[in-house]
Amino acid sequence: MTILTSTTPDTDIFTERESEVRSYSRSWPTVFTSAKGSWLRTEDGRDYLDFFAGAGALNYGHNNPVLKRALIDYLDSDGITHGLDMHTAAKRRFLETFDALVLAPRRLDYKVQFPGPTGTNAVEAALKLARKVTGRESVVNFTNAFHGMTLGSLSVTGNSMKRAGAGIPLVHSTPMPFDNYFDGETPDFHWFERVLDDSGSGINRPAAVIVETVQGEGGVNVARPEWLRALADLCSSRGILLIVDDVQMGCGRTGPFFSFEIAGITPDIVTLSKSIGGYGLPMALTLFKPELDVWSPGEHNGTFRGNNPAFVTATAALEQYWADDRLQVSTAAKGRRIGEIFANLSDSFDGVSTRGRGMVQGLVFDDPGKAVKVCGLAFDEGLLAETSGPSDEVVKLLPPLTITHDELNHGLSILAEATAKVCA
Amino acid sequence: MTILTSTTPDTDIFTERESEVRSYSRSWPTVFTSAKGSWLRTEDGRDYLDFFAGAGALNYGHNNPVLKRALIDYLDSDGITHGLDMHTAAKRRFLETFDALVLAPRRLDYKVQFPGPTGTNAVEAALKLARKVTGRESVVNFTNAFHGMTLGSLSVTGNSMKRAGAGIPLVHSTPMPFDNYFDGETPDFHWFERVLDDSGSGINRPAAVIVETVQGEGGVNVARPEWLRALADLCSSRGILLIVDDVQMGCGRTGPFFSFEIAGITPDIVTLSKSIGGYGLPMALTLFKPELDVWSPGEHNGTFRGNNPAFVTATAALEQYWADDRLQVSTAAKGRRIGEIFANLSDSFDGVSTRGRGMVQGLVFDDPGKAVKVCGLAFDEGLLAETSGPSDEVVKLLPPLTITHDELNHGLSILAEATAKVCA
Amino acid sequence: MTILTSTTPDTDIFTERESEVRSYSRSWPTVFTSAKGSWLRTEDGRDYLDFFAGAGALNYGHNNPVLKRALIDYLDSDGITHGLDMHTAAKRRFLETFDALVLAPRRLDYKVQFPGPTGTNAVEAALKLARKVTGRESVVNFTNAFHGMTLGSLSVTGNSMKRAGAGIPLVHSTPMPFDNYFDGETPDFHWFERVLDDSGSGINRPAAVIVETVQGEGGVNVARPEWLRALADLCSSRGILLIVDDVQMGCGRTGPFFSFEIAGITPDIVTLSKSIGGYGLPMALTLFKPELDVWSPGEHNGTFRGNNPAFVTATAALEQYWADDRLQVSTAAKGRRIGEIFANLSDSFDGVSTRGRGMVQGLVFDDPGKAVKVCGLAFDEGLLAETSGPSDEVVKLLPPLTITHDELNHGLSILAEATAKVCA
Amino acid sequence: MTILTSTTPDTDIFTERESEVRSYSRSWPTVFTSAKGSWLRTEDGRDYLDFFAGAGALNYGHNNPVLKRALIDYLDSDGITHGLDMHTAAKRRFLETFDALVLAPRRLDYKVQFPGPTGTNAVEAALKLARKVTGRESVVNFTNAFHGMTLGSLSVTGNSMKRAGAGIPLVHSTPMPFDNYFDGETPDFHWFERVLDDSGSGINRPAAVIVETVQGEGGVNVARPEWLRALADLCSSRGILLIVDDVQMGCGRTGPFFSFEIAGITPDIVTLSKSIGGYGLPMALTLFKPELDVWSPGEHNGTFRGNNPAFVTATAALEQYWADDRLQVSTAAKGRRIGEIFANLSDSFDGVSTRGRGMVQGLVFDDPGKAVKVCGLAFDEGLLAETSGPSDEVVKLLPPLTITHDELNHGLSILAEATAKVCA
Repeated sequence: MTILTSTTPDTDIFTERESEVRSYSRSWPTVFTSAKGSWLRTEDGRDYLDFFAGAGALNYGHNNPVLKRALIDYLDSDGITHGLDMHTAAKRRFLETFDALVLAPRRLDYKVQFPGPTGTNAVEAALKLARKVTGRESVVNFTNAFHGMTLGSLSVTGNSMKRAGAGIPLVHSTPMPFDNYFDGETPDFHWFERVLDDSGSGINRPAAVIVETVQGEGGVNVARPEWLRALADLCSSRGILLIVDDVQMGCGRTGPFFSFEIAGITPDIVTLSKSIGGYGLPMALTLFKPELDVWSPGEHNGTFRGNNPAFVTATAALEQYWADDRLQVSTAAKGRRIGEIFANLSDSFDGVSTRGRGMVQGLVFDDPGKAVKVCGLAFDEGLLAETSGPSDEVVKLLPPLTITHDELNHGLSILAEATAKVCA
Repeated sequence: MTILTSTTPDTDIFTERESEVRSYSRSWPTVFTSAKGSWLRTEDGRDYLDFFAGAGALNYGHNNPVLKRALIDYLDSDGITHGLDMHTAAKRRFLETFDALVLAPRRLDYKVQFPGPTGTNAVEAALKLARKVTGRESVVNFTNAFHGMTLGSLSVTGNSMKRAGAGIPLVHSTPMPFDNYFDGETPDFHWFERVLDDSGSGINRPAAVIVETVQGEGGVNVARPEWLRALADLCSSRGILLIVDDVQMGCGRTGPFFSFEIAGITPDIVTLSKSIGGYGLPMALTLFKPELDVWSPGEHNGTFRGNNPAFVTATAALEQYWADDRLQVSTAAKGRRIGEIFANLSDSFDGVSTRGRGMVQGLVFDDPGKAVKVCGLAFDEGLLAETSGPSDEVVKLLPPLTITHDELNHGLSILAEATAKVCA
Repeated sequence: MTILTSTTPDTDIFTERESEVRSYSRSWPTVFTSAKGSWLRTEDGRDYLDFFAGAGALNYGHNNPVLKRALIDYLDSDGITHGLDMHTAAKRRFLETFDALVLAPRRLDYKVQFPGPTGTNAVEAALKLARKVTGRESVVNFTNAFHGMTLGSLSVTGNSMKRAGAGIPLVHSTPMPFDNYFDGETPDFHWFERVLDDSGSGINRPAAVIVETVQGEGGVNVARPEWLRALADLCSSRGILLIVDDVQMGCGRTGPFFSFEIAGITPDIVTLSKSIGGYGLPMALTLFKPELDVWSPGEHNGTFRGNNPAFVTATAALEQYWADDRLQVSTAAKGRRIGEIFANLSDSFDGVSTRGRGMVQGLVFDDPGKAVKVCGLAFDEGLLAETSGPSDEVVKLLPPLTITHDELNHGLSILAEATAKVCA
Repeated sequence: MTILTSTTPDTDIFTERESEVRSYSRSWPTVFTSAKGSWLRTEDGRDYLDFFAGAGALNYGHNNPVLKRALIDYLDSDGITHGLDMHTAAKRRFLETFDALVLAPRRLDYKVQFPGPTGTNAVEAALKLARKVTGRESVVNFTNAFHGMTLGSLSVTGNSMKRAGAGIPLVHSTPMPFDNYFDGETPDFHWFERVLDDSGSGINRPAAVIVETVQGEGGVNVARPEWLRALADLCSSRGILLIVDDVQMGCGRTGPFFSFEIAGITPDIVTLSKSIGGYGLPMALTLFKPELDVWSPGEHNGTFRGNNPAFVTATAALEQYWADDRLQVSTAAKGRRIGEIFANLSDSFDGVSTRGRGMVQGLVFDDPGKAVKVCGLAFDEGLLAETSGPSDEVVKLLPPLTITHDELNHGLSILAEATAKVCA
C-alpha cells in the first residue's frame, strides 16, 4: 500500500458539471484511476481495499486477468461489439456455456431474455411478462425491497426517498412483510396468506411476487430457506408467479450460483445482472420457464441488449469459476470468516449485531450514525465499504468473491478497529 | 465481398434457449462474428453492408480503430472498468471533453447526469426530474413517439403493440399530433395550444413535453425547425419543460451534434445514449439546465452508470469527430446523396415517397408490405436495413456517419434495385 | 311580485356550520322558503322568477300540482318509501309507463338500471359497464364536458378547478375536441379518427365515448345532429360504445324526450337523472342495450336506488307530459322565443353572441365579467339565472319547460335590460 | 298478519326491462306495495316483518307517522323541494337542529357539507377533502370494508366481486387488518404501525384512514372501543386524517347517535347517510373539523344535494328521537335481547357464533350455505333478513330501532326455528 498523501483531488469539473444526484463520490471524495483484483488506486497514488465490489457487480474482482485476456482478444479480433438481438457467435457461446455450466447441472429449464443491460431493465421485463401471462396487474413486493429506479421497478421498491423521486403515485404494488419483519412474533405469511384467501380483503390476486433472497440495499435482511420454500408454495398454490430478483445476490454472492438454490425452489422468473457480465460490463438477463415465453417478437427491446463484449467476459467467467464448485466452497469459507469477526464485534459491543449469508454480510448498529462513522473511518484507513438499510444502520460487506484471505483479514481488522473506536 | 454460401447457420441454441422476444435475428437469419467500419461478417464468411448501425448506436462505424485503440489501451492499463458514480479519471476526462467540445462551443450550460447506461434509463431520469421540479404528473408526448420500454418511457411511447406489453394501463401521458401529422391541414399546435389555454379542456398543465426532432422508430417523421421553435416557445410561455430525446438523433445523426441545433432552441432537458459511447458500449446521459438540478444525492441511481470503458471511447469519439466540423459537413453531403437517390425512386414509382434529415432517411411505401419486401431483398444482396413506422411502411436508413461514398452508393444501388423489383 | 324589502336574511347558521363548498348561496344571498311553478319565494317575501330550474332538475316547474297530488296520495297511503332494488308496485308502474311512453314509441330497446339516485352515480354505472363489457379501460370524453364529481365521473369532466379537487391524478380518460371546438376550421373528428386508426398514436382503443349533446356546464355548446351521427358511426365502426349523458339535456330540455333523438342515433348507453323524477326528487337511470347487460346481481348497488316517491312522481310526469307531443312542441316554440330575444341582444351589442337548442340557451359574452354582472343585475330584479362555461362567460338559461309565455317574456326583458346596462 | 297466498306475482316487466344487476328482488321474489313501522306488505296481501330496514336507512321504521306528518305538511305548503345549495328555511332548520341536538351536546365542532344525497357521494367528498388537505394520495382502508360503488369509494371497498366491476385497476388504497382479523393473535396495528414507521416499507404516509366501527356488509365485524382509540391515536400521532364512515352505523344503529361515541374519539371527518333523512329519503352529510374546510366554492357539487323534503324529515327525526336518550337506551336493551337469543343459538348449535353491537347483530355460520338457507326459510315465514360477509356466512340483523318488543321476539323466534331446521 502506498504512503498516503494529503493533496486535495481536482474535482472541479465534477462539482461544476455533474448533477447533484451523484452519491458515492460524496462518501469517497477522491478520484480513482485504476484497479486490480480487490484494490482500487487513486490518482494521488493511494490504494483502497474494496469491500464493496461495484455494489456486487465485481464478484470476480477488478479487471480479472482471465476475463481481461478474453475481452482484449475479442476486441482485437474485431468481434461484434454491438449486436442488438442479432445472432452472434459471442452470444451463442454465452448461451451454450450458460446452458452447460449453469442451467443443465441445476436442472433448470429457463428461456433466456436479454433485456437492456441493467438490473432495472431485467426487472421491468420480468414484471411486464408476469402481467402479460396472468392478465393481472398487481405485484406483491416486500418491505425494504430494492429492484431499481425505472418506474416499474421503482413501484416495487420500498425506500420512501427513492419512491418520492417518481413524481407520480406509484401503484399496482402491495408490500408484504419480509422474513423476520416481526422478529418471529407472527407466523410466516400470516397477513399475506390471509388476504389472498379472503375475497373481501381488498387485495386482488396478484400477477406475481418479486423477492430478493437477501435484501442488500434493504439492510442485509436474510430470508430463511424455509421461508422461501413456503413463499414458493404459497405462490404455486394460488397461481401467482414467483420472481426472484437475483441481480445482486446471484452469480455466487451467497455461495451457489443462484441465491435461491439453498431453498431448493425453482422460481418462475429470475433476473440477473451486475456480476453476470463478469468484468463489470453492463449486461442483464431475464430467465423464465418456457411456458411463460409469450412475448411477441420485439415486444420488449433495447439498444444495448446485445453488448457482446460482456457476453465474452460472461462466458469466460462462467468457464473460469463455475465449471466446478471451488468458488462456491471458498465463498462459504470466507463468509464464515467474516461472520466470526462480526460475531466477535457483536459480542464485544452493545448495540451491534450481525447477519448475512455467504459473502454478503452486515454489521448492524442500533444507532445508525455509528454505521456511517465506521465506514468513514474505514475509508480513512484505505477501505471501501458502504452502509445500507432504511436508516443507513448497516455496514454492508460485499467483497469480491476472489479476495484473498490476507486481504479479507486486513479489511476486517480495519473494520474491527473502526468499530471499536466508534463504540468505545 | 465474399462469395455467398448456402449453408444453414447453426442456430439451435438460440431457438432452444433465447426468448421468443428476439426480433432482428428473425429478419436476418444468420450468425454474425465480426465487424469493421460499415461491414459485418457472418460465420459462414458472408459480408453485410450496414445501413442500420446498431439502430443509431454506431454512428462512427463498427470497431472504429481510433476508439478501439483508446479502449484497449485503457483496458490494458487496468483503468477503472466499473465505477458506479465514483469520481474517476476517465469520467473526468469525458466531462472535460464534453464540456470543451460539445457544451461550450454551443453555449449550452447543462448539468450532466449519468443514469443507467441505456436510452430508456436516461428518459426515465428526465421524466422523474421534470415531475419533481414542477410538481405536476402529466407529460405530453407525440404521435408515433418512441422513448423506451421501461414503464415510464413506455407510457410516452406510441406503438400500441409495445404499449400492450406493459400489462397495465399506461397513464400520465397525453399524445399530441407530431409535426405534419395532418399534412399541413391544420395550424401547428392547433389542438395542443387550445387545450392548454382552455381551463375546461380536461387536460391539466403538463410537467413536460418530450419530443424527438426526427422520429426514427415512428417512421422517419421529421419536425421542421420552425415547428420545434414554436414548440419551445409554447412550452416556455406556459411554464412547461421541454425534453428533447436525442438518443437516436443526437451525436451527429442529422448533421450537428444535437439534432435540435438546427432550430436554434435550448431544451430544458436532453437525453443522449446510443452513439454517445462511440463504440457501441452502453452509456447514457441526461442533461438539464442547472436550475433544474434538484436531485437529492442517490435519488436516482443505477449499477452501471459508471461504465468507464464507454467514457474512454466516448472521449476518443468526441476528440476525433467533434473537434471540428468535418463530420457534420460530410453527414450533410451524404444525407443529400441519399435524398437524391430516394427522390429518384419516389419519382419513378407510384406509392413511394421520401423524407429525412442528414443521415436518417426514409423511403416510404404506401403499401407497407413493399417496404418489408425491399428490406428482405436487400438482405439477400448483402445489405442490412430495417423498416419502421406504425405499419412497417418505411425503409429506414441509418448508415454509419463514417461510411465511404463508395459504400453508400453500393448500398443505395442495392436498395434501388430492390425497390424496382418490388414496385415493378 | 312582492315589494322588495331590504332586511338582511339571517344566514348565521349557514356561515357557521355549512362548508365553504357552498356556492349558489353566494350568488343568491337570500333564504328561500317556498316555490310554485316558475317562482321561488324567500322568507322576506320576495319572489324570484326561476330561469335555472334546479340546474335542469325541475323541467316541470316547482311543486307541480299534478305530481304533488300523486306524491302526497302515495305518502298518505303508506306506499313503500325506500325499497332498495326490491320489486315494488311503484317501480313496476314506472317501468311500464317508461316502456310505454318513452321507449316503445321511439323503438328503443333498453334495459333499465336504477343506480344511486344522482347523475354522477348513473355515469359511474355507465362507465363501469362499458369497461366490463369491452375489457378496455380508457374512455374518450370531450372538451368542457361535465359528468359529475365522484372519481369516475370527474375523470371525464373537463373543468380544471373541479379536477384538481380529486387530489389524485385523474387517468383513463382522453379528451377530444367537442363539436365546433375549432369554429369549423378542421374536419369533424379529424384528430379523433386519426388517432384511432394510427396504431402508433399512443391512444389505445377506448371502451367508450361519453358525450353530452349540449354541454350545459361547459357553456351551452351545442353538437350538431350531423356531428352526433358521425360520432355514432365512428364508434360503431370501431367497436366503441357510445354513452350519451342525458342527465341535464334529457327529459325534454331540448324538445324531444331524449336530446339525441334529433340526430336519429341510438346510443349504446344513456344516463338520465335530474328531471326524470319530475318533482326534483333524487332519481337516476342508466339505460343500455340488452346485449350489454352483463352485470352480475349486486355488482353495482346503492342504498337509495329505490327512491319510490320519485318513481311515483316520475310516472305522473311521464303520463302528464309525454303521452303526446304538446310539451315538445311548446318547448320548441319557447326556445325560439328565447333565441329571438338573444339574437336581438347579440345584434345590438358587440361581444355578445348566442347559442342553444330548445330551452337551453346561452348568451355568450366575449368579456366573461359581463356575464357575471348580467346575472347579478338579474338577481336584483328578481330573476335567477346562472353563468356557465370555463370562464363563466355564458348566461345559461334553463327555465322550466312549463313556464308561461308571460313569465318567459318577463324574465327575458329583465335579462335584456341587464345586458343593455352592462354592455352600454 | 295476512293469510299467505300462493299466487305468483306479476314480475314480467322487471324481468324484461330491469337490468340483471338487481339483487334483493331475487332473494325476495314478491312485489311490495306499502309499509308501516316494522312491516312491509305485498300486493298479494302478505305482510313481512322487516329485520333489514332498508339496509339501515330506516332506523325509525317505515313511514314513521311523525315524520310523515312533517313531510306531507311541508309538501302541502309548497316548501322548496329541490334547492341545490341555496339557503332555504328547511336547510336552516335542519342545521340548527343538528347543531343543537347532535353536535353541541357531544361537543363536536364540525362543518357540514351536503354532498350528493347518497353514502358513496359523502365518502367521495371525504376522500377528496382528505387528499386536498394533506397533499397525499394514498388512503388506508380495512379488510372487508364497504364504502360504496363509485370509483373513489370502490377503491377503499374490499369485496373482490364489486372491485372487479370497476373495469380498471383500483389504486391509491392500502388495506390493513380490521380489528380481530387475526383473532387476537397479533398486537393491534402490528403491521400498520410498523409500515408507517419504516421508511423502507414501500407504503408512503397516507392522507387518511377510513373505517367503519362495525362493518355491516363485511360481516358484522365489530371494532372494540380500545382498538378505535388506538387507531385514532395512531392517526393523530402520524398526521393522518381519520375518517369514520358512519353511513350505516350512525344515527343510533349501535346505540348512541354516532357509532364512534363509545370509543370517546373525535374523527377528523365523518360521513352520514341512510337514516340521517329519517324517512328513507336520499340525504347525506360529510362532516369535518373546521380547520379542514379548505374547499373552494363549488369544488364538489351535485344536483340533489339540496333534497329539502329530506331535510324536513331529518329535522323531525332528530327532534323526535334525539332530544333525549330514550331511543339510545331502548336500542341498547333490544340489542341485548337479540344478543341473548343469538347466544342461545350459538350455544345450541355447532358452527354458529354471534357478534354485534346495539341493533346490528350477526349470526355467523361456519358453513356459509346455512346462513343463506336460514334467510330463505325466514322469508317463507314472513321475515326479511339478509346475509353479509365475504362468503355470505352471516345472517345480519338491522331491525328498525323503533321495533316493538313483540315484533322483535316474533322475528327472533322465526330465525331461531329456521336455524334449528338448518342446523339439525
